[in-house]
Amino acid sequence: MNKAIILAGGQGKRMKADMPKPLFKVLGEPMLEWVISACEKAGISDICVVKGFKGEMIDEYLGGRYTTVLQAERLGTGHAVMQAVPFLENDSEGNTLVLCGDAPFIDAETISSALKLHEEQRNAVTVITAELDAPKGYGRVIRNESGISGIVEEKDATDEQKAVKEVNSGAYWFDTKQLIALLGKITNENAQKEYYLTDTVSLALADGQNAGAFKSENPDIIKGANDRRDLLELNTYARMQVIDKHLENGVSFICTDGVVIERNVEIANGTEILPNTMIKGNTKIGSGCVIGPNTVIENCTVGNNVTVNAAQAYDSVIGDNANVGPYAHIRPDCNIGKGAKVGDFVEVKNSNIGEKTLISHLAYVGDSDIGKKANIGAGAVTVNFDGVAKSRCVIGDYSFVGSNASLIAPVKLGKGVYTAAGTTVTKDVPDYALAIDRGVMKINEGYTLRKLRPKSK
Amino acid sequence: MNKAIILAGGQGKRMKADMPKPLFKVLGEPMLEWVISACEKAGISDICVVKGFKGEMIDEYLGGRYTTVLQAERLGTGHAVMQAVPFLENDSEGNTLVLCGDAPFIDAETISSALKLHEEQRNAVTVITAELDAPKGYGRVIRNESGISGIVEEKDATDEQKAVKEVNSGAYWFDTKQLIALLGKITNENAQKEYYLTDTVSLALADGQNAGAFKSENPDIIKGANDRRDLLELNTYARMQVIDKHLENGVSFICTDGVVIERNVEIANGTEILPNTMIKGNTKIGSGCVIGPNTVIENCTVGNNVTVNAAQAYDSVIGDNANVGPYAHIRPDCNIGKGAKVGDFVEVKNSNIGEKTLISHLAYVGDSDIGKKANIGAGAVTVNFDGVAKSRCVIGDYSFVGSNASLIAPVKLGKGVYTAAGTTVTKDVPDYALAIDRGVMKINEGYTLRKLRPKSK
Amino acid sequence: MNKAIILAGGQGKRMKADMPKPLFKVLGEPMLEWVISACEKAGISDICVVKGFKGEMIDEYLGGRYTTVLQAERLGTGHAVMQAVPFLENDSEGNTLVLCGDAPFIDAETISSALKLHEEQRNAVTVITAELDAPKGYGRVIRNESGISGIVEEKDATDEQKAVKEVNSGAYWFDTKQLIALLGKITNENAQKEYYLTDTVSLALADGQNAGAFKSENPDIIKGANDRRDLLELNTYARMQVIDKHLENGVSFICTDGVVIERNVEIANGTEILPNTMIKGNTKIGSGCVIGPNTVIENCTVGNNVTVNAAQAYDSVIGDNANVGPYAHIRPDCNIGKGAKVGDFVEVKNSNIGEKTLISHLAYVGDSDIGKKANIGAGAVTVNFDGVAKSRCVIGDYSFVGSNASLIAPVKLGKGVYTAAGTTVTKDVPDYALAIDRGVMKINEGYTLRKLRPKSK
Repeated sequence: MNKAIILAGGQGKRMKADMPKPLFKVLGEPMLEWVISACEKAGISDICVVKGFKGEMIDEYLGGRYTTVLQAERLGTGHAVMQAVPFLENDSEGNTLVLCGDAPFIDAETISSALKLHEEQRNAVTVITAELDAPKGYGRVIRNESGISGIVEEKDATDEQKAVKEVNSGAYWFDTKQLIALLGKITNENAQKEYYLTDTVSLALADGQNAGAFKSENPDIIKGANDRRDLLELNTYARMQVIDKHLENGVSFICTDGVVIERNVEIANGTEILPNTMIKGNTKIGSGCVIGPNTVIENCTVGNNVTVNAAQAYDSVIGDNANVGPYAHIRPDCNIGKGAKVGDFVEVKNSNIGEKTLISHLAYVGDSDIGKKANIGAGAVTVNFDGVAKSRCVIGDYSFVGSNASLIAPVKLGKGVYTAAGTTVTKDVPDYALAIDRGVMKINEGYTLRKLRPKSK
Repeated sequence: MNKAIILAGGQGKRMKADMPKPLFKVLGEPMLEWVISACEKAGISDICVVKGFKGEMIDEYLGGRYTTVLQAERLGTGHAVMQAVPFLENDSEGNTLVLCGDAPFIDAETISSALKLHEEQRNAVTVITAELDAPKGYGRVIRNESGISGIVEEKDATDEQKAVKEVNSGAYWFDTKQLIALLGKITNENAQKEYYLTDTVSLALADGQNAGAFKSENPDIIKGANDRRDLLELNTYARMQVIDKHLENGVSFICTDGVVIERNVEIANGTEILPNTMIKGNTKIGSGCVIGPNTVIENCTVGNNVTVNAAQAYDSVIGDNANVGPYAHIRPDCNIGKGAKVGDFVEVKNSNIGEKTLISHLAYVGDSDIGKKANIGAGAVTVNFDGVAKSRCVIGDYSFVGSNASLIAPVKLGKGVYTAAGTTVTKDVPDYALAIDRGVMKINEGYTLRKLRPKSK
Repeated sequence: MNKAIILAGGQGKRMKADMPKPLFKVLGEPMLEWVISACEKAGISDICVVKGFKGEMIDEYLGGRYTTVLQAERLGTGHAVMQAVPFLENDSEGNTLVLCGDAPFIDAETISSALKLHEEQRNAVTVITAELDAPKGYGRVIRNESGISGIVEEKDATDEQKAVKEVNSGAYWFDTKQLIALLGKITNENAQKEYYLTDTVSLALADGQNAGAFKSENPDIIKGANDRRDLLELNTYARMQVIDKHLENGVSFICTDGVVIERNVEIANGTEILPNTMIKGNTKIGSGCVIGPNTVIENCTVGNNVTVNAAQAYDSVIGDNANVGPYAHIRPDCNIGKGAKVGDFVEVKNSNIGEKTLISHLAYVGDSDIGKKANIGAGAVTVNFDGVAKSRCVIGDYSFVGSNASLIAPVKLGKGVYTAAGTTVTKDVPDYALAIDRGVMKINEGYTLRKLRPKSK
C-alpha cells in the first residue's frame, strides 16, 4: 500500500517559541495538518510522522491518529527518514511519499499526478518540483533525456545550473523497497556531517535505476516559514486564496480587511461577508445571509437569510431568517430557531431557542429550553447555577418573561405564561398564568429635596 | 427635453445570484443608482430604464421613480434601446443619452461636457470614450478628420486599430429624432444575430450625418463588473476615492483598514475616523469627533466633538459633545442630547435623551422621553412592551433611576425623582419624590455552611 | 552642554485644522513628541521648542517640560532659530542640534553619529542628510574634497546637481558659538524676503570654517506630512515598523488589518495579536496571550496566557490566565486577579477582582473589592453612586452574588456569602450567611387568556 512519511522534527528557532515548526498555524490549523490533509485527500492514510524537537507536542497534537517516530538527533533529512524504516518494513509493497511537515501548501492533485508519473516511469525516486521565477536559494533540478541527473544545491551550482528555474520542493515519491535500500547507502561524508535525502537520486542513478521529476503546476508547494514574518505571509496567502474561492462561488465582499475564513468553511452564494469577520472550523453558512462586521463564528451551522452583526457564535446551530446581534454571544450547544432574534447584549448558552422567539436585549439564557414565539424581556436572567449545580429552565411557547425577571432553575413555565417585570420565579407556572412577586410601590414625597439639602448648605 | 435610457437588462451569471446585474451594489448602492444619480446631477431627470432578466426586481427597486420598459428577449444593445422607442416618441425634441446600468462611475461632468460637444458638432450620435493604457477587449474608436469613422470591436480590429487606446465606454448621446430613425435601420445580420447599438455610428455616417466622440478625462467610466471579484474591485476603488475626498477635506485616519464610508456621507474637518468603521446612508458628522473603531453609523446626524467608540447607531441624531459606547446600540428615532452619555451595553430606541443625561451602562431605554441631567442606573429597564402594546416612559430632568429598576410604561416620573435600586415603578411619581417597593432584607446565618455540607461528605 | 532647538512654528494649512503641524499625531503621539524622544534617547535634554502658529497649544502640550520661544512672524527657518539665541547664550559651550518638529522619524543613532562626525571634523555646521532614490523637490547636498560646498535648492539646481541623490534632511549640528555668530550674518535679501538657515553653510565656508555633511543610513528621517494623506502615510509606515519589530520578537499575527500598536508597547514572544486590535500607551503584555480581535488596550499591564477577546481595557492590571470578553469593558484603576473572568457585557471600574473570581456576564462592578473565587451573577450591579456620592462594595472570598442582585454601597459581604437572585443588599452580611429580600411569588391563573381576550374580539 502507498504510504507517506512527514518530516516534522524542525524547531524553527526564529519563530521564538518552544514549539516544533510544523505545529505553527496557518489559518487556524498547524502546517502539519495541512500536509496530512493533502495526503488524505490524495488517498494516502498510512502515515508516519517523524518528530524531533519537542516531539511530545507532535504526539499530543496527533492524539494517536498516526504513527510517529523520534529522530533524537538532527542529522539531516536522510537520517530523519531512516527513523521510519521499521514503518516502511511493515509493508514494503508500493510507494512512499516523503513530505516536509512545514510546507503546508502541498496539494492532493500534485501528489496524485506525481505518483502517476512515478509509476509510469518505474522510478526508484521521483522528485516533486516547481518552477520559480526567483529560484535563488533552492536546489535546482537538472534534467537529462532519460529523467533527471541530479539535484544541485545553490552553493554547488554552476552559473548555467543557477539559471535553471525548476527547483526541488523537498517532496518525493519513492518505490518503498528501493527507498529502504537507498537509505542504507546514504553517508554523512560531507561538510555538515549530515545524511541528505537528496543523495538518493545519485545513488539510484549510480545503481542503474530510474530517477525522475514531476513538476507541479502549483509553485506554492514550495512555500514555507522560518520566522513570524514568513508565517504571516503564509497566512495572508491562504487567507486570500480562500476568499477568492468564495468570490468565485458568488459570495459577496465589500471589503476584505480583517476577513479571515478558514479553509473548511462552506458559504452558499448570495451571502455577504462584511469586514473584520472571522469564520472558523467546520462552519457552514447558507445563502442570502449578511455576516459581520466584527463577527466571529466557529463550528456553527447557519441557515439561509440569517444576519449576524457584530456577534460571536460557537458550536451552535442558527436557523433560517434568524437575527443575531449586534453584540450577542452565542456560546456552545445552542440551537437558535428559525426567525428567532438574539439581540444586543444577550448571551445564550447550551439552550434551545424556539422559532420566532425574541431575546431582544440584555438577557442571559443558559441551560434552557424555550418554545416558539416567546419573548424574553430586557434584564431577564435564567439562574442556571446556584453555586453548586447547574439546572435547566423550560419556557413554553408564547410565554413572556418580564424585564429584570430571574428564573431560578430548575423551573418550568407553561405555554403563554407571563412573568411580571422584576419577578423572581421560584416555582413552576402553569399554562397561561401570571407569576408575580412584586411588593407594593411606595412614594416618599419630597425625598430628593431632603436628600440634597445638606449638599446645598 | 434631453432624456436618458439606461440599459439594465443584464443578468451577470458569474455573480451567481438571481439578480439583474445593475442591482449589485457598490458602496451600499446598486450600480443602477450610481448611473441614475449621475444623470440627475447632470440635470437629466426624464429617464427610462430598460429591464430584462428579473425585471420585476428593477421595478421594485425603482418604486415608480422612473419609466421602465421590458426587453423580453436578449437580442443586443440596439434591441434593448428599441424597446424604449415609445418613451422617445413621447417627446422627440432634444437629445437622448444611452448608458449602461452596470458601469457605475459615469459622472455628471462627462455627461454634460459630452452633450456640449454633441450639440456644437450637431452630431446624430456622439460616442463617449475614454483612453486606456490597456485597451484590450474594448471596442476601439477610429477617428478621422471630421469626427469618427466607426467603432471596431477587438476581434475585427487590425493591428493598427488595436494600437488605438481610445475605447467606447458604451455611453452615447443621440439626437433623439435621429436615434428613432437609426434604430429602425439596425439589423441582426451578423454572426450573433443581435442588434448592435454601435451600428448606429456607421448608419449615421452612411446617411451623411455627423458622428463624433467625446473623450472623458475619467477613464473609470469604463469600469464594470462581471463577477464578485470585479465587484469587490469596484467597491475598493469607490471606497478609496471616498476616503481620499475626506482626507483632502481634513478628516483624519490613522489606518483605513475596514473603513467603509458611503459616498453621500458628510464629515467635517478635524474629525478622526478609526479603523473598521462603516458610515452609511445620509450621515452627517461634525468636527472634532472621534468615530470608531468598530463602529457602524447609518443615516445619523452627529454633532461636533462627539465620540462614538465601538457602537452602532441608526437613523438618529446625536448632539454635540455626546459620548457613545463602547458597546452601545442606538436604534432608530433617537435624539441624544448634547453632552449626554450612552455607555456600555446600553440600547436606546425611539427615545429622546436630554442634555447631559447619563445612561452609563447596562440599560434599555425604549419609547421614552428623558429630560436633562438625569441618571439612569445599571440594569435599569424601561418596560415599553407588555406583550400586547407599546407605551412610553417619561422621566423628568435631574431624575435618578436606580440600578435594576423597571419602569412599567406608560409611566411618568417628575423632575428630580429617585427610584430605589431594584424597584418596579408601576405608577407615576411626582416631582422630587422617591419611589421604592423594596422588601425587607433578611439574613439567614450559616446558610452557606449548611448548603455546602452535603457536598463535603 | 549640547542642546537642541526644535522648529515647531508651522501651521500645516492643508491639514485643515487649527493646530500647529508638529502636534498632529503619528501612532498616537504628536510628531513633536517623536522628535523630542529621539533627542532624549541621544542624551540631549536641554531643548528649546520654537513655536509660532497657535503657539499656546505647543505650551499646553509640553506642560513646561521644555523651554519654548515664540516666532511671532514667519520669516524663515533662520529667523526661527534666531528667536532661540537667548537660549543658546545661556550656555554657549558645546554644540546645538536644530531639528524640524514635523519630521518624526529622526532617530537617536543618526543624531549621535552625526555629532561624532561634527566633532571629529571640527565643523561649524554639519548638515544631516539622507540619500533618496527620488530626490526631486529636496535641497541637494553638494560635496567637495574638504566637506560640502553648499546646499542647492531644486529650483536653483543645474541638471548635474539635480542628479545628486543626497538631500538635506533639515536637521543640523552647529558649534553653538558659531551658530550664534552665523545667525547674525543671515540676511533676507532674496525673492521670499526670508531668513534661511541653509545660508549658514555658505556663510561658514566664506568665513573659512568647516562645513560637513553626515549621511544617515535611515532615509525615513526625511519623511514629513503636509496634508492628511501624508499623515496617513506616516502612520502606516510607523504602524508597519512597529508590527515588524514584534514579528521579529516572536509575536504572532494571522492578519495585521486594523492592528495599531503604539511604539512604546511591549509584547512578549508567543503572544498572538488578532486583527483589528489597538494597543496603546505604556501597555505591557506577557507571553502566550491571545489579544483580539476588535480589542482596545491602553496603558495596561497584562500577564501571561491571558485572553482579551473583543474587549476594551484602560489603565488597569490583568493577571496571568485571566479571560476578558467578548464585549467586556475594563475602565481605569482595575486589578483583575490571576485566572479571573470578566465576561460578556461586564463593566468593571476602579475595582479589585480576586484570583479566579468569575464575573461571567451582564454585570457592573464599580468601586468594589472582590475576594478570590467569588461568583458574580448575571444582572448583578454594585450600586456605587446614590446620586450624591460614590462608595465602595466589599465582597468576600468564595461569595456568590445572585442574578439581578443590587448591592447598595457602602456595604460589606463577608466570606462565603450568598445573596439570593433579585435581592437588594442594603446592609452588611456576615460570613457564610444568605441575604434575601424576596417577596412571595403568586400565581394568577388564566391571566394571559384574560389579557388577550379583548384583542381577539
